[in-house]
Amino acid sequence: MMENKGAILILSGPSGCGKSTLLKNVYKEIDEYYFSISTTTREPRVGEKHGVDYLFTTREEFQEDIKTGNFLEWAEVHGNYYGTSLKPIKKALNEGKIVIFDIDVQGHDIVRKKMDKVVTSVFITTPSLKDLEDRLTNRGTDSQEVIDRRIQNAKSEIRFFQKYDYFIINDNLEKASKELISIANIARVKSKLFDKDETLNNWLS
Amino acid sequence: MMENKGAILILSGPSGCGKSTLLKNVYKEIDEYYFSISTTTREPRVGEKHGVDYLFTTREEFQEDIKTGNFLEWAEVHGNYYGTSLKPIKKALNEGKIVIFDIDVQGHDIVRKKMDKVVTSVFITTPSLKDLEDRLTNRGTDSQEVIDRRIQNAKSEIRFFQKYDYFIINDNLEKASKELISIANIARVKSKLFDKDETLNNWLS
Repeated sequence: MMENKGAILILSGPSGCGKSTLLKNVYKEIDEYYFSISTTTREPRVGEKHGVDYLFTTREEFQEDIKTGNFLEWAEVHGNYYGTSLKPIKKALNEGKIVIFDIDVQGHDIVRKKMDKVVTSVFITTPSLKDLEDRLTNRGTDSQEVIDRRIQNAKSEIRFFQKYDYFIINDNLEKASKELISIANIARVKSKLFDKDETLNNWLS
Repeated sequence: MMENKGAILILSGPSGCGKSTLLKNVYKEIDEYYFSISTTTREPRVGEKHGVDYLFTTREEFQEDIKTGNFLEWAEVHGNYYGTSLKPIKKALNEGKIVIFDIDVQGHDIVRKKMDKVVTSVFITTPSLKDLEDRLTNRGTDSQEVIDRRIQNAKSEIRFFQKYDYFIINDNLEKASKELISIANIARVKSKLFDKDETLNNWLS
């Protein structure tokens, strides 16, 4: 018999597309998940907590972990390092959990390349660019400069939505939540997760 | 804005794996589906109804429809023609429905080749060959000769499970139903269903 398989669920999409709210709904409906937290060398912002928002670390430690191959992916953005430590991910996969990533297109490409067999990926976006601008402006958490950069990133990233397995237009929270929950529920039954020879030997024996 | 997309859901798996029972559970939970019925030239068995079990037709009509390109796939098996008419499928896809196919590996390959962008496929099987033999024997509907042929087909077909997007081991009806319902629910959000240029133009405008 086959054991419970772990799987990776990658979510990408512009800041402001509603990913965080969707994820909260997913967490209520699926069990056995691990949300992958990035490690960063940037300073914590007000209210950010180590182990919740990020694993905060020093440049020296980060560079050492790069050398020892402890990162699934890492990048230097605006002068700070951001990366994903491999250890908790491997542990969670071995325990049969859904490992959830909230990363950008660049991160997606790297994770897919390195762990293709266990990956299901979803690109989430607002119905239109105008909706995104409205949401970013209305939530009032970012400066105009930050909003402008997010808009530019969104226009650039959406061009790659077809690299993802699924594409969710978040025009209705209930519908989008249902879709994302369904995707999470079946991440463990992707056929490529099953070792072909092992599965056939087990089945035929 | 993007309209509701139709999509194809292909189910394959050995006779006796529980596909029919699983499908009944799926029908309760999803709306807007069309179950693709095969057209055949074989004689109706006792209790079989035209339009429910098969579309029964003559060899002459079947051969004419082959010539006019009216079949998505067709095959001659044990001296009878079996095939899938394209017209109701195209209609259902245009209406945004999930078109469900219960076909074998050979049929899967043809449908995927011709309509890859809209296809999600699932291979369903029993936990083991022994379980399949037990189920086929216990349901008591088939002669030993038929059972033997089904077993041989199953041993041959399971080798190709990795051609499918998803692989469901039907060892627990409730769990397997939940998985299949989830797969049906997200068949419409496969990223390849969305025309890239059209989607980008709509989103950026």
